[in-house]
Amino acid sequence: MRIALDAMGGDHAPTPIVIGAVQAVAADPELTVVLVGDLAQIEPILAQQSGPMERLEIFHCSQVVGMQESPVDALRKKPDNSISRSWQLLAERKVDGIVSAGHTGAMVAGGMRLKRYLPKVRRPGIATIMPTIKGPCVILDVGANITPKPLHLLQYAVMGSQFAKHLLQKEVPTIGLMNVGEEAGKGNELAKVTHDLFLASPLKDRFIGNIEGRDIHRGVCDVVITDGFVGNVMLKVCEGIFEFLMKMFSNEVLGSLNVERPQAQLAMKNLIDRYDYSSFGGAPLLGIDGVCIICHGSSRERAIKNAISVASQHVRSGVNQRITEELDSLPSLGSDDE
Amino acid sequence: MRIALDAMGGDHAPTPIVIGAVQAVAADPELTVVLVGDLAQIEPILAQQSGPMERLEIFHCSQVVGMQESPVDALRKKPDNSISRSWQLLAERKVDGIVSAGHTGAMVAGGMRLKRYLPKVRRPGIATIMPTIKGPCVILDVGANITPKPLHLLQYAVMGSQFAKHLLQKEVPTIGLMNVGEEAGKGNELAKVTHDLFLASPLKDRFIGNIEGRDIHRGVCDVVITDGFVGNVMLKVCEGIFEFLMKMFSNEVLGSLNVERPQAQLAMKNLIDRYDYSSFGGAPLLGIDGVCIICHGSSRERAIKNAISVASQHVRSGVNQRITEELDSLPSLGSDDE
Repeated sequence: MRIALDAMGGDHAPTPIVIGAVQAVAADPELTVVLVGDLAQIEPILAQQSGPMERLEIFHCSQVVGMQESPVDALRKKPDNSISRSWQLLAERKVDGIVSAGHTGAMVAGGMRLKRYLPKVRRPGIATIMPTIKGPCVILDVGANITPKPLHLLQYAVMGSQFAKHLLQKEVPTIGLMNVGEEAGKGNELAKVTHDLFLASPLKDRFIGNIEGRDIHRGVCDVVITDGFVGNVMLKVCEGIFEFLMKMFSNEVLGSLNVERPQAQLAMKNLIDRYDYSSFGGAPLLGIDGVCIICHGSSRERAIKNAISVASQHVRSGVNQRITEELDSLPSLGSDDE
Repeated sequence: MRIALDAMGGDHAPTPIVIGAVQAVAADPELTVVLVGDLAQIEPILAQQSGPMERLEIFHCSQVVGMQESPVDALRKKPDNSISRSWQLLAERKVDGIVSAGHTGAMVAGGMRLKRYLPKVRRPGIATIMPTIKGPCVILDVGANITPKPLHLLQYAVMGSQFAKHLLQKEVPTIGLMNVGEEAGKGNELAKVTHDLFLASPLKDRFIGNIEGRDIHRGVCDVVITDGFVGNVMLKVCEGIFEFLMKMFSNEVLGSLNVERPQAQLAMKNLIDRYDYSSFGGAPLLGIDGVCIICHGSSRERAIKNAISVASQHVRSGVNQRITEELDSLPSLGSDDE
């Protein structure tokens, strides 16, 4: 198993990124990580680490896409950047998967540029895993495809279901369509047409219909389908409100305690570790031929280690093969896309 | 000051709704509430209450719009329903404002039917007030206008700003546009065109540009503008995650305590009372000629009392006059609407 890691991507790169890779190979004896980035920066960090260093390779490249750059411009002007080089390693099958905490838009654009999608996939989508009262659920798309067609959303349901089945152990994953009300006929044109498309598709038995924003955390379904604009806003709203409520809770509830404050702080730290929306293991870009995990820009050691672990689980699960088979079994729905 | 209250609207109507009205008139000596609904149900509830009963009137009507009904059908088939009758009282200027915890879609449809908008207003929008680390902010639209035009969003910024100024005491309210990234040029077509329209408008000095979902609770601006689809999903996601996190906190953090658990529970109850997204004082439908407050379906006494209080503050503030003046001062932007 070989995973390429963009060593230069993320707000805190490269040190915690490289250390996350060291931790990942230490935890998985079959794993090799290829650190993609500036040799001169990576080598001194590695020199200070111990572990199975023979399973850490460096693929040198000289450029980095800045977090504020326009992705398309940056990829064009900086051909030797760590994101493009990671994609190239994947395209040449020199690695099984790639992981980056760098510029999300550039990661997606890098993949779109190569257009190495799974057969029949029209557009890749970013999936994220969200906690609910009944365990994790998959939400997609959260930002790869801002103005999708209904067929894209149907394909996302296939991808998300296979991901939920093989990586989250949901035997028969149920699917919900994000909307402004539960009744059929609700919502904007995209939601209405997509709702009908689901009902006319082989997915209809697992389609629970429209769901509302409050239903996600209640765990009403295993896979939530939405367009990349709404999904991206939703995901970041969750991040913001989590941060806000943790602060309020810490100030007001923990602040009300005296002798038992330490144990409450410990319980809260555990809760934050589990639910912090900004430190989750990373979001897979589904629909590409290979595995690509996009991490939050604020990722540090633990998030990177988790993301590399998710990437190798993803490779081992064979979920891409299952996605291809299920897409193949869908009746042809014509070409409503470019 | 006369406010009509839909006594039949909401999951728990009519008892807690009517009691909320009794509490509201007790708290405001200049207020009369007109209870719109079934006399036979309202009278026995009032008979058990004490307070300034002379300032509680009943406007009898025989029908109710069910929470699951199609709003347009229901308004047509049930002409004597409490929502339509409330709007009628407003249109005839027999009341200054209306409040309902009934069917949101029917409330909006009732207002659209009468089309009693403020001068120049193209479409009313539902505003909601959300807590942030820097105090409350206004978000609109959260569901009245699912597929708005850019001009509608510009008008929402005017309405939201005037509301923030006169009801939330924000001297110079700043405005942000909900998007998937901060940079200009981000997002779907609506977001891109609206961004440029803001920059070309007299609002540009208070426009901070695009914001992301996580920025709301960080309090980066006073007024958040978005389309009704995204706004509605966002609002309900907040409600769901609040419910989820409070349950997790309660189980894990409060569950870790022994002797100090009661004081932590009290602090948590206070926090929930302040931030519970489902029990806020209600969402104003801005842009109509009059005041209309839409409450959460789950509203009980306190939420109804608060909503009536918000309605009367809204009337007293003269904010509608300010909205009209500011819309008048905008250069004509042509007719991009029906």
